[in-house]
Amino acid sequence: MINIRRAEIKDLPSILELVVELAVFEKEPEAVTASLYQYEEAFKEGIFEGLVVEKQGLIIGMAIFYMTFSTWKGKMLYLEDLYIQKEHRQSGIGQKLFDAFLKIAKKKKAKLTKWQVLDWNTPAIKFYYKNGASIEKNWWNGKINITNDSKNVH
Amino acid sequence: MINIRRAEIKDLPSILELVVELAVFEKEPEAVTASLYQYEEAFKEGIFEGLVVEKQGLIIGMAIFYMTFSTWKGKMLYLEDLYIQKEHRQSGIGQKLFDAFLKIAKKKKAKLTKWQVLDWNTPAIKFYYKNGASIEKNWWNGKINITNDSKNVH
Repeated sequence: MINIRRAEIKDLPSILELVVELAVFEKEPEAVTASLYQYEEAFKEGIFEGLVVEKQGLIIGMAIFYMTFSTWKGKMLYLEDLYIQKEHRQSGIGQKLFDAFLKIAKKKKAKLTKWQVLDWNTPAIKFYYKNGASIEKNWWNGKINITNDSKNVH
Repeated sequence: MINIRRAEIKDLPSILELVVELAVFEKEPEAVTASLYQYEEAFKEGIFEGLVVEKQGLIIGMAIFYMTFSTWKGKMLYLEDLYIQKEHRQSGIGQKLFDAFLKIAKKKKAKLTKWQVLDWNTPAIKFYYKNGASIEKNWWNGKINITNDSKNVH
């Protein structure tokens, strides 16, 4: 009934829609400022890859990831987003998508996969624990936006 | 007195030594399992880049980073590690290194830079605030180690 396959450039509009849905769920609906053009350019440059979940011709879920490097463990496949539309949850699709992601990590010879989860997102946290993940609570994220006239950049 | 330049493959042994020093500071001395060979392979594959700080012919500091993609903001240069040896701190070298990193982020047309800091590392947190960073405290890290016989991967 569902089909999980690698994301192609034609899927990016649907993926961006799901990113916005996820941002709404994460209570940051205004946070998505990246444009479809930015997605297309970065995808063409190979900066990220993805998986999509199709059901009856519609994309109902996706995972976005990219290879990074853990200075402690070595090659690390970073899972930027994993999302299944609300009406399609609770039927094992998220597990199938996560398994497909882990399979790619193994194929790419990553030593580690890493991602982030909001501290209040209990269903997701339970899901990751069930999958044998460890959850670290003692690291904070630092961020700086880069603008063309950034005062931070001399 | 100091020279900041792009890391080359010949710098990787010194970089790995500094990674271990940083892991000791972060109270995880056993955490570094990546080998020099893994560093060299990943560096040659372009999975990460770096900056080194030289003083009197010795490498006394380093930054490791790689291009990633924020589904909210677009291209994001991720700072995996930033480290200056203890005896060389408090003299502005860390600021110069961070500035050099931000300059590369701008040159690469990243929209955002991101990194992590331990919640008890007050000097580092103050340093990042001083640089105009925002610090997020509500995201946890999920991790799964990938092994050849991983039960997680079907």
